[in-house]
Amino acid sequence: MKVIQVAHGGGHYPVYVGQGLLGVTTVLERHLSGRVLVVSDENVARLYLERLKPALGRIEHKQRLILPAGEEHKTPASWQRILDELVALRAQRDATVLALGGGVIGDMAGFAAACYMRGIKVVQLPTTLLAQVDAAVGGKTGVNHREGKNLIGAFHAPEAVVVDLDTLSSLDERDYHAGLAEVVKYGAIRDPAFFAWLEANAEALSARVPQALMEAVYQSVRNKAEVVAADELEAGQRALLNFGHTFGHALETATEYKAYRHGEAVAIGMALATRLSELLGRVEVGTSERMIALLDKLGLPTTLPEDQSAERLLGLMRLDKKNRADQIRLVLLDALGQGCVMPCPADDIREVLTQHG
Amino acid sequence: MKVIQVAHGGGHYPVYVGQGLLGVTTVLERHLSGRVLVVSDENVARLYLERLKPALGRIEHKQRLILPAGEEHKTPASWQRILDELVALRAQRDATVLALGGGVIGDMAGFAAACYMRGIKVVQLPTTLLAQVDAAVGGKTGVNHREGKNLIGAFHAPEAVVVDLDTLSSLDERDYHAGLAEVVKYGAIRDPAFFAWLEANAEALSARVPQALMEAVYQSVRNKAEVVAADELEAGQRALLNFGHTFGHALETATEYKAYRHGEAVAIGMALATRLSELLGRVEVGTSERMIALLDKLGLPTTLPEDQSAERLLGLMRLDKKNRADQIRLVLLDALGQGCVMPCPADDIREVLTQHG
Repeated sequence: MKVIQVAHGGGHYPVYVGQGLLGVTTVLERHLSGRVLVVSDENVARLYLERLKPALGRIEHKQRLILPAGEEHKTPASWQRILDELVALRAQRDATVLALGGGVIGDMAGFAAACYMRGIKVVQLPTTLLAQVDAAVGGKTGVNHREGKNLIGAFHAPEAVVVDLDTLSSLDERDYHAGLAEVVKYGAIRDPAFFAWLEANAEALSARVPQALMEAVYQSVRNKAEVVAADELEAGQRALLNFGHTFGHALETATEYKAYRHGEAVAIGMALATRLSELLGRVEVGTSERMIALLDKLGLPTTLPEDQSAERLLGLMRLDKKNRADQIRLVLLDALGQGCVMPCPADDIREVLTQHG
Repeated sequence: MKVIQVAHGGGHYPVYVGQGLLGVTTVLERHLSGRVLVVSDENVARLYLERLKPALGRIEHKQRLILPAGEEHKTPASWQRILDELVALRAQRDATVLALGGGVIGDMAGFAAACYMRGIKVVQLPTTLLAQVDAAVGGKTGVNHREGKNLIGAFHAPEAVVVDLDTLSSLDERDYHAGLAEVVKYGAIRDPAFFAWLEANAEALSARVPQALMEAVYQSVRNKAEVVAADELEAGQRALLNFGHTFGHALETATEYKAYRHGEAVAIGMALATRLSELLGRVEVGTSERMIALLDKLGLPTTLPEDQSAERLLGLMRLDKKNRADQIRLVLLDALGQGCVMPCPADDIREVLTQHG
């Protein structure tokens, strides 16, 4: 087991990374207090709820709430169900919410914990690769509004994050590979050694070899923790985490969130952003080839589908953020392992959007 | 106009107290940015919305949301309506919510601002005495759950609080006097000079003489600001603000929030807590007489109704907080102007609950 301390505000919280941690009583027990509500979804509960039994053995007042699975349930209505359950449990200020699941469960349960009695503890137990390396660290919580994702939410740092790598074994092939896109992102924007490690270990990672998983998750969490901590002093660091995401969000919106997993859209976005960096002369020639080769080995897509209109995507990218008239702020690369935020001319963006494969 | 700076976290925000401030463009304008949503209720909007016109003149994108008046509308559903309106206005992170109304509007609009995009600005424009001296300062926001008041919420410091004393002239007689209960509270728990001033100026205050109002609101806000700031370092200071409230909440619950305004129940609670302080020998004999005389002059009730069972109230007080078996933690007085938090024997509490008038 490895432990990473994430600094925030005045304090910090631990992220434990290891195998079989859901069943390790000593890890979980030290972060529980008061009455305990476990929030999970139908799929995850069936697989992993049982494993929490030893850790919850000594808790007298506890309850579980199993929500339907899927992003379409990440709504204010589900959030209210969690709050209702806390009220029914007569949870006090010392109560703990245990969020067992992917990003959807973690975001909703974290947001409910943020708002119940103006804030109680949440311990995050992320069970997807995406949640482990991204959502569970940093304290962003929330639900979707029908007109926009994550429009409603709060910053609420978890009490602790427990990453049990064993839960990744049940992950659907596509979801697993989609999660790897965010792993690549950390290497690309700030950690050249990690990027090189990923290139050398892509096969092992693709095959979910435990030691490779441990290293990939650990390095990702460490990088995210450093960015989150740095951002409290140095505004803007966190913006680097959007590498590939402005392209990716436009593609997700254009395809109505149906054709791509988030990580798949981000992978295409990273390939495009790296091409753009090369087009603008920011990185040496061949850089985008290396990026694309790595994404390929990790089973991720790197090109836009033929039927996507460059103009449509460009329009969506303009909406995505506040941009000046003909410039869009994007995360580009200065090297594999060094990101930067840049206003980019629409014409150059259009050029990479029209190259297909 | 007077200005009090309220310290919180790393920063601070101003509370402006004066007459006619809603119409003073220079005060409001400096705290507005982005798109502006004004949230108010039907009663307040009819009286005061017009007065904001000059200050909002230069704002291009603005909207108003007028909610039905009343505590029964302080619900997650109303909070969602505010969020819907922010989405419809296409508010960004720089947007401002203007909360024009009493505590219900301030709490709901503040909570919506806390959650929209994980937090945008709220400027509080409290129009009731209770909201001016209590709710608008301190950053507590939230809505009621059907099983408990303020169970859902967040801490979200306002950008500024603008107290226009003119709005008090339209306040219903009962609501105005109920608000004075919280004013008396600040004197009682921490400010002997202010308590003496209240005794000397009770008639002027009862008659809403502008100079008396200015002093009463200013001293109340100053005291609340000091408590809120102190509490960030010294946990527990804030607990003194519950003086009269444990008794008061029990009475409100026993009468299903129908017989008393909050301030009226608190006034009875302060009379009882002062009697209890005297019974326990904490304050000199005659102290509760002074307290009751002041509350009387301010048109506030000081005795329990005959039909209230002492056992029932005691049972409700036990529920109100986490208490040990036969002790209830209460705010008592060591003097008029000095509060303290004490575990009290149930038998002594029962004794003051059974004295009628």
